[in-house]
Amino acid sequence: MRMRKKKNCDARMERCSDIWIKEPEKYKGKWAERFGNDNPIHIEIGCGKGNFIVGMAKMYPDVNFIAIEKVEDVIVMAMEKTVAAELTNVLFMDMDAEKIEDIFEFGEIRRIYLNFSDPWKKNKQAKRRLTHKRFLDRYKAVLKQGDYIWFKTDNKALFDFSLNSFAEENFKLENISLDLHNSKFEGNVMTEYEQRFSEQGMPIYRLEATYLGWEDNRKKES
Amino acid sequence: MRMRKKKNCDARMERCSDIWIKEPEKYKGKWAERFGNDNPIHIEIGCGKGNFIVGMAKMYPDVNFIAIEKVEDVIVMAMEKTVAAELTNVLFMDMDAEKIEDIFEFGEIRRIYLNFSDPWKKNKQAKRRLTHKRFLDRYKAVLKQGDYIWFKTDNKALFDFSLNSFAEENFKLENISLDLHNSKFEGNVMTEYEQRFSEQGMPIYRLEATYLGWEDNRKKES
Repeated sequence: MRMRKKKNCDARMERCSDIWIKEPEKYKGKWAERFGNDNPIHIEIGCGKGNFIVGMAKMYPDVNFIAIEKVEDVIVMAMEKTVAAELTNVLFMDMDAEKIEDIFEFGEIRRIYLNFSDPWKKNKQAKRRLTHKRFLDRYKAVLKQGDYIWFKTDNKALFDFSLNSFAEENFKLENISLDLHNSKFEGNVMTEYEQRFSEQGMPIYRLEATYLGWEDNRKKES
Repeated sequence: MRMRKKKNCDARMERCSDIWIKEPEKYKGKWAERFGNDNPIHIEIGCGKGNFIVGMAKMYPDVNFIAIEKVEDVIVMAMEKTVAAELTNVLFMDMDAEKIEDIFEFGEIRRIYLNFSDPWKKNKQAKRRLTHKRFLDRYKAVLKQGDYIWFKTDNKALFDFSLNSFAEENFKLENISLDLHNSKFEGNVMTEYEQRFSEQGMPIYRLEATYLGWEDNRKKES
């Protein structure tokens, strides 16, 4: 589902066509080829205006980043930042996170970033939260064994929900922080939201989650 | 280490001698005998004035409770409440949590409660926190396989520390809440601190933790 608002968005998107993947399904299992190297691939689901992904791509030139965002009005801004910074290790796709299994092979992804995802506050909307079991199952289907999901949010209720969701679904939690900006975590790259919330003195919650199930599967096989 | 303040404390303690275990080491491996039944045994480390343990003992007559508290001035109040309520499923010992391995056999305990433990705020005091690895190792030495630690606190920094400590030490986290009194958790018995903090509108943090290592050990053995 594409949401368009601004009139000149299409033209601006087209100007970023080198880093805008229009038919991502084509590259399933072939992302290393597309990037032209074997560097690990990290994805951000919901990149917004791209501050995080662009900051990360600058900081980690030996990592390939793929940013997913379904709102064209914001993904275009993220792509323009990437073009301006002349980064060659970031690609973009405007699509829904529901489809990531169509885009990536099992084990093709080394890390997933979920930053300030929509909290979907009502209980009946819980299924839409990006840390709902429905999505965690999809992440398991594309992540490499032993690799991480990095999650941060300003929303306490979403963090609470997510802690439980990860723990229930056999993820090991690590580096949990209930106040990221006053924690020991180094190398944090801020998103647009994060900058704003943190200026207002609101705590940022963060965790890393690794799926433990592979270990069990391996034991069963051996 | 016994801390005495009130003059008549000894006499009051003596009046509770039926439920006050002066030489707990004697009963290691024999707590079921001491209680006179095979009901599961739950312990609270740091029972304070006893509101929680007395509330729980009333609510769960088929559970045996043991409350540990090193401050005599407060344990005496907890014991007096227990005597007044004519409860036969609670015993008390004034000792330090460091010694629980001398008091209980492996598997003798079904649940441990840690309520509003001292946060020991300075980094160099971290080892004294009741959720530090140093203590978690002791809990593993007395808990029955697959059973729980229930932890709650008003202190965000201690909760943050504890989440990480449990996760690092191979505990599975469950029913995590960053705002217990606005969560779905039912049957919460409040402590004295909890009552006071919650009246002030402060959120109460809570989690349950189960040690997963037994599973690994079992797999290794089989």
